[in-house]
Amino acid sequence: MKSNLRARIAAEFLGSAFLVAAVVGSGIMAERLAGGNAALALLANTIATGAALVALILAFGPVSGAHLNPVVSFADALEGGLAWSQMLPYAAAQIFGGICGTFAAHAMFGLPLVSLSRHIRSGPAQYLSEFIATFGLLCVIWGCSRTRSSAVPFAVGSYITAAYWFTASTSFANPAVTIARCLSDTFAGIRPADVPLFIVAQFAGGIAATVLFRWLIPSLPSRAKDVVVPHGAEG
Amino acid sequence: MKSNLRARIAAEFLGSAFLVAAVVGSGIMAERLAGGNAALALLANTIATGAALVALILAFGPVSGAHLNPVVSFADALEGGLAWSQMLPYAAAQIFGGICGTFAAHAMFGLPLVSLSRHIRSGPAQYLSEFIATFGLLCVIWGCSRTRSSAVPFAVGSYITAAYWFTASTSFANPAVTIARCLSDTFAGIRPADVPLFIVAQFAGGIAATVLFRWLIPSLPSRAKDVVVPHGAEG
Amino acid sequence: MKSNLRARIAAEFLGSAFLVAAVVGSGIMAERLAGGNAALALLANTIATGAALVALILAFGPVSGAHLNPVVSFADALEGGLAWSQMLPYAAAQIFGGICGTFAAHAMFGLPLVSLSRHIRSGPAQYLSEFIATFGLLCVIWGCSRTRSSAVPFAVGSYITAAYWFTASTSFANPAVTIARCLSDTFAGIRPADVPLFIVAQFAGGIAATVLFRWLIPSLPSRAKDVVVPHGAEG
Amino acid sequence: MKSNLRARIAAEFLGSAFLVAAVVGSGIMAERLAGGNAALALLANTIATGAALVALILAFGPVSGAHLNPVVSFADALEGGLAWSQMLPYAAAQIFGGICGTFAAHAMFGLPLVSLSRHIRSGPAQYLSEFIATFGLLCVIWGCSRTRSSAVPFAVGSYITAAYWFTASTSFANPAVTIARCLSDTFAGIRPADVPLFIVAQFAGGIAATVLFRWLIPSLPSRAKDVVVPHGAEG
Repeated sequence: MKSNLRARIAAEFLGSAFLVAAVVGSGIMAERLAGGNAALALLANTIATGAALVALILAFGPVSGAHLNPVVSFADALEGGLAWSQMLPYAAAQIFGGICGTFAAHAMFGLPLVSLSRHIRSGPAQYLSEFIATFGLLCVIWGCSRTRSSAVPFAVGSYITAAYWFTASTSFANPAVTIARCLSDTFAGIRPADVPLFIVAQFAGGIAATVLFRWLIPSLPSRAKDVVVPHGAEG
Repeated sequence: MKSNLRARIAAEFLGSAFLVAAVVGSGIMAERLAGGNAALALLANTIATGAALVALILAFGPVSGAHLNPVVSFADALEGGLAWSQMLPYAAAQIFGGICGTFAAHAMFGLPLVSLSRHIRSGPAQYLSEFIATFGLLCVIWGCSRTRSSAVPFAVGSYITAAYWFTASTSFANPAVTIARCLSDTFAGIRPADVPLFIVAQFAGGIAATVLFRWLIPSLPSRAKDVVVPHGAEG
Repeated sequence: MKSNLRARIAAEFLGSAFLVAAVVGSGIMAERLAGGNAALALLANTIATGAALVALILAFGPVSGAHLNPVVSFADALEGGLAWSQMLPYAAAQIFGGICGTFAAHAMFGLPLVSLSRHIRSGPAQYLSEFIATFGLLCVIWGCSRTRSSAVPFAVGSYITAAYWFTASTSFANPAVTIARCLSDTFAGIRPADVPLFIVAQFAGGIAATVLFRWLIPSLPSRAKDVVVPHGAEG
Repeated sequence: MKSNLRARIAAEFLGSAFLVAAVVGSGIMAERLAGGNAALALLANTIATGAALVALILAFGPVSGAHLNPVVSFADALEGGLAWSQMLPYAAAQIFGGICGTFAAHAMFGLPLVSLSRHIRSGPAQYLSEFIATFGLLCVIWGCSRTRSSAVPFAVGSYITAAYWFTASTSFANPAVTIARCLSDTFAGIRPADVPLFIVAQFAGGIAATVLFRWLIPSLPSRAKDVVVPHGAEG
């Protein structure tokens, strides 16, 4: 029996909220403490984000699959895993959860709940970075799904840990997180004007990886219902 | 056959002592070496704490479950895992173990065994941080328990690694550890006057997560006896 | 049924491209942010590389084995795992993939696609470092293959994380990566003139470890087809 | 059939050599690059050591158990795991391997093969640190052995990662490594005069933990032959 949809939506909401709280909150803490050293601040931000992903996918994955990312839900629907009728509720929960995560981070650090970011992230190099970052993320997810590996949470956490550093955009790779981060004028922020092209690049990268893996692993759609991790069995 | 209670209490005592020794000791070492860079000191403190949690839950979990935290024991008793009659011995072992951990850290670094902390940690932002930190910790524990995953030690270690950075309080999330840390006027300390509200916020967060997961995963109580990790089988 | 060769070659190409993009890209980001502190830059570079290896071996391993390294493919062919007829396509995909990885990293950071490195890495200490680094890498791979452990991606990622620091050459340990890195005049670069002896040392170290493990574990060749991780089963 | 003793001794030799090379080599690299920041140098040294332990135990464990430490071999012999007749060959291989690891690290960094350390590490706080460090290490090993967990390599690597920071001595916890490190007048060195009491404290801590766990887990000796990880089965 599948988990009921409400429980799954709640899990996507909570997981996305914690994910964004981790990204934004650790960015605030890191910038406050790092004394101006950007590498040290990003390193702390990276370690917190990667570790949060491991914990959150392990915790919420068994309920909802722990997509926590509209590109992942969309790609999974493309492969027949997530029903299209659930695609919108999933994405809405992720986006709304992400925004609440920004609120939570700001509240924990005594900041106004919302502050529009002035951090400019634009230009072809940034968009290419987001395309590659999300392409890689979906490669990792589809590649690991083949073995139904219990290692997926570690694969995703490790991938994002690396991608924070090897892309020029620090690898947002997630439209819900991107939207949530434009509401925070802190270390992890992104100027609202730069959000739309980030999201376009993210979907393009995710779809490209999904098409590629359909050819690489023809039997892939049979496992799409277990993305990111097997979930939904009651008991 | 269950491990006898004495062995389980000893495991909770030892695990909590090592956990606090790791938190307090690594804080002392980090502050001594970091040359005034607080981000670097917290990063070392974080990595040591997260790694210690992985090792300690793996080591002591098979004996006592490795709660190492009165909120976890209380929540587990709420769900019918830990017998209420064992709740107090567990909590006492955790608190007394934590205090001995502070003593051990101080002794190893050549400091007086006890020194009351003057590190102020008060205000709504701090209490909200502790509420969210402990809420998240119990989400991770209950979420992972569903799959009896051998990944729980890694989930908890990863979660605390992240939460050190994304909460303004550096995520104590544990009343026994909080009490032990007020006895150390070092990097990881907390002023005794701030302890009570930290503990209130921690219990509130833990109970909220437990109630939530009872709804998210109705079959959860059947696995409560295996929290944090399966334990107690002799052999 | 084995994965068809085209899919496996594509996986080696993609995996090697992402590996080099991670090495070169994180080096660029780290150097830009580190404010001249070489230890901090190398630490970020290390964490990104180790984490990328974990993710990439988990993702591409089930398709092609995730050799991502001509020395690994050669050693595996020596042991009867990889057919000799596939050795050249594997190596070509790794080298060409690596070069494209350098291009991708440069494009993401807004640099010219190619810039010959002027980073001198020569002398006996450097070659000895590469011999030992690759010797150790193959020890780890052959040692783990015995138990068909799902831990191999973590073993390789951990090994390279350590070897970045314990060898004087920062452990290239991979001819495809070495070639790709000579095309980047950035943090991770190597002067083209130094490449040939690096590659000689890498093959020597890899062959030495393979010969040693044939004696240590006589039954090893029977598992060579599952190196680095089991792969090729369709389904 | 057990692996023949020669293969096991070779594995202990090689594993110990790589372990010390990782400790000493990463210390040299870290000190050279860290620009005088001791916290940053120790962080790099820590990450390299912890990661090396994970990789080496995974790689050499299936052959010899990956004790890599005379205290572990002694404690395992106490519990009936290692035959007493093999205790001396194991310890000799570990000590000789460790010394060769120092040689290798020095050679890779272009230093004289041997240089007696002048790094003073003496006094009760240091000895207490070594007692606690080794006590904890054996707790972790015995605690994990109960579940024959494939997580032991990660538990040991995580424990040492933490113990580098929470003990005042940076947790040598290993007589073979201690001897090898007195031959290196670099970051990781220890003055030869301080070695004997370090070793006494290490054995005392290891024996205390072993006695404690015999009481905590009465069935422990039945698993002593699988310490640190199951090994010796040919095939």
